[in-house]
Amino acid sequence: MTNVDPVPVFFLSDSTGITAETLGNTLLTQFPEIDFDRTTIPFIMDVAQAQSVVATIDGVAAHGGHKPIVFSTVVTSSIRHTLAECTGTLVDLLGTYLGQLEQALATRASNEPGRAHGLGNAARYQSRMTAVEYAMEHDDGQSLRALEKAQIILVAPSRCGKTPTTMYLALQHGIFAANFPLVDEDFEREGLPKPLRPFVDKCFGLTTNPLRLSQVRTQRREGSPYASLRQCGFELRSAERLYASHGIPFLNSASMSVEEMSATILQQMKLKR
Amino acid sequence: MTNVDPVPVFFLSDSTGITAETLGNTLLTQFPEIDFDRTTIPFIMDVAQAQSVVATIDGVAAHGGHKPIVFSTVVTSSIRHTLAECTGTLVDLLGTYLGQLEQALATRASNEPGRAHGLGNAARYQSRMTAVEYAMEHDDGQSLRALEKAQIILVAPSRCGKTPTTMYLALQHGIFAANFPLVDEDFEREGLPKPLRPFVDKCFGLTTNPLRLSQVRTQRREGSPYASLRQCGFELRSAERLYASHGIPFLNSASMSVEEMSATILQQMKLKR
Repeated sequence: MTNVDPVPVFFLSDSTGITAETLGNTLLTQFPEIDFDRTTIPFIMDVAQAQSVVATIDGVAAHGGHKPIVFSTVVTSSIRHTLAECTGTLVDLLGTYLGQLEQALATRASNEPGRAHGLGNAARYQSRMTAVEYAMEHDDGQSLRALEKAQIILVAPSRCGKTPTTMYLALQHGIFAANFPLVDEDFEREGLPKPLRPFVDKCFGLTTNPLRLSQVRTQRREGSPYASLRQCGFELRSAERLYASHGIPFLNSASMSVEEMSATILQQMKLKR
Repeated sequence: MTNVDPVPVFFLSDSTGITAETLGNTLLTQFPEIDFDRTTIPFIMDVAQAQSVVATIDGVAAHGGHKPIVFSTVVTSSIRHTLAECTGTLVDLLGTYLGQLEQALATRASNEPGRAHGLGNAARYQSRMTAVEYAMEHDDGQSLRALEKAQIILVAPSRCGKTPTTMYLALQHGIFAANFPLVDEDFEREGLPKPLRPFVDKCFGLTTNPLRLSQVRTQRREGSPYASLRQCGFELRSAERLYASHGIPFLNSASMSVEEMSATILQQMKLKR
C-alpha cells in the first residue's frame, strides 16, 4: 500500500489522552511504511462534545482519501455509543477488555472516566513530585547533600544523556535519581569522584559513541577541544574503563531511548517501579 | 469481592513495558476496590525467557489465592504462544487489534517487537531531548536567553508545581517550555515581570490552594513568613488577579496531576503534541 496522503488518526479520551496515544502509537508502529496524521482530543466529557468530535472525524473522512483510524479510551457508555457512529475504524481500547476483567475479578467495573493519570493515590503522586525536585537539585553533581537518599546515581562524561534519563526515572517512575559528571581529573586518578565512593553500589554509568558525542558537544561549543573527536574518544574510553574497574553496570545512550535505558536500569538495579 | 491478599498483576513486554503498564493500569483503575500487586517484566526477547516468565507466573498462581492477571504487549507469535500457556488471565493488548488494523489499512503488520518507545524517528527524539535541556536551562527564570524560543512559559508563585509540569511537557511532548516565578515585587507593581511582557501570549498561570501551598512551603522552610498561610493566601490571590488582568489562562495544581495539566495546557494553547 503506497500512500501519498497520510492516514488520519484520532486519539479520543474522556481524560488526558495519554493511554489512547500510548497504545494507539504502539499499534501504529506495526505499520512502519504508512504515514499517519495524528490528532489527540482529550477531555470528551459529555454526549454533546462527542457529537462535535464525530462531526470533526466525519469532516476529515469526507474530504480525505482515507477512512480515519480512531483510538478511544472513553469509558462512559453513552459517549462511547455516540463516538461509535463516526465514519472511522473505531478501536475501543478499554471496552474490549472490561468484560474479560470483570469475569476474572468477579466484580463490576466502575465505569468512571479517567482515573489513570489523575492525582490517584495522593501519597504516590506526591512522592513522584518529590522525586522530580530531588532530580533537579542533584543534576550534574550540583548538590552532594542527601546523596544517600538517591536510589540511583547516573555517572558519565558531559553530554552522554544523564539529565533526561534522570528526569524520566523521577517523573515517570518516582525514583530518587541523582547524576554526577565524570571529568578529566577523575580519569587521571582512575578513581571514582570522592563523593560517590560510599555509594558505588548505586552508580550506573552511561557511555555513547565518540562521533555522536563530538556532534552533540559541537552544538554547544563549536571548534572547542571539549568537542573534539580526540577528547570525546578519550573520555568515553576512560569512563568505560572506570565502570569496568569498579563493577559499575553501564549502557550506551547512542542506541537506546531514555525510556529503554530507564526500563533497563530499573530491571538491572532491581528497583521497584 | 473483599480481598485480603492483593491480586497479582504482571505487565509483560518484549520492549520497555511502558505500553503494557499504561493500558493495564488504566484498566485496573476501573476496579478501585481491589488491591493489586504489580510486577513488570520487560525485554522478553525469546521463547526461553518466556518459559521462565511462565514459570514465575505459575509459581505465584500456585502459592497465592488469586489467579494472576497478565497484560502483554509482546508481538512475536512464538513468544505469545508460550506466554499463553501461563496460569493467568492473559490480556493480549496488541494481538487483539492487529487484525482489525491490518484490514483497515489493507496491509500486514510488521510483527517486529518494541518500536514504540525506542529511538524511533531520530529527529523527533532529538527534539524531545533538546526540549528537556531547554526546560532545565529555563527553570525558575534562571535564564532569560532565548525566551522567544519558548512555546509556553509557565508563571506562578514559588512551589505551585511549575517545574514538574514544565518537565513533563518537555520530556513527554517535546514542548519548549520555560517557567518563571512571580514574587512580591510583581504583585506590588501589579504588572508582569519585565522579561515576560513581550511574551504574554505564551504565558500560562498556575495557582493552588493557600493551605496546600503553606504545607508544601513548610516542608522547605518551617515556620518562615514564606510558608505562612497569610503570605501564601496573599500571593495566590495576587497571582490570580495578575492572570485575570493580563488575560493569562490558569489552572489549579491542587486538583490536577501534571499529566492532566499538561494535556489541558496543550489543548488550550493549541500546541501540537
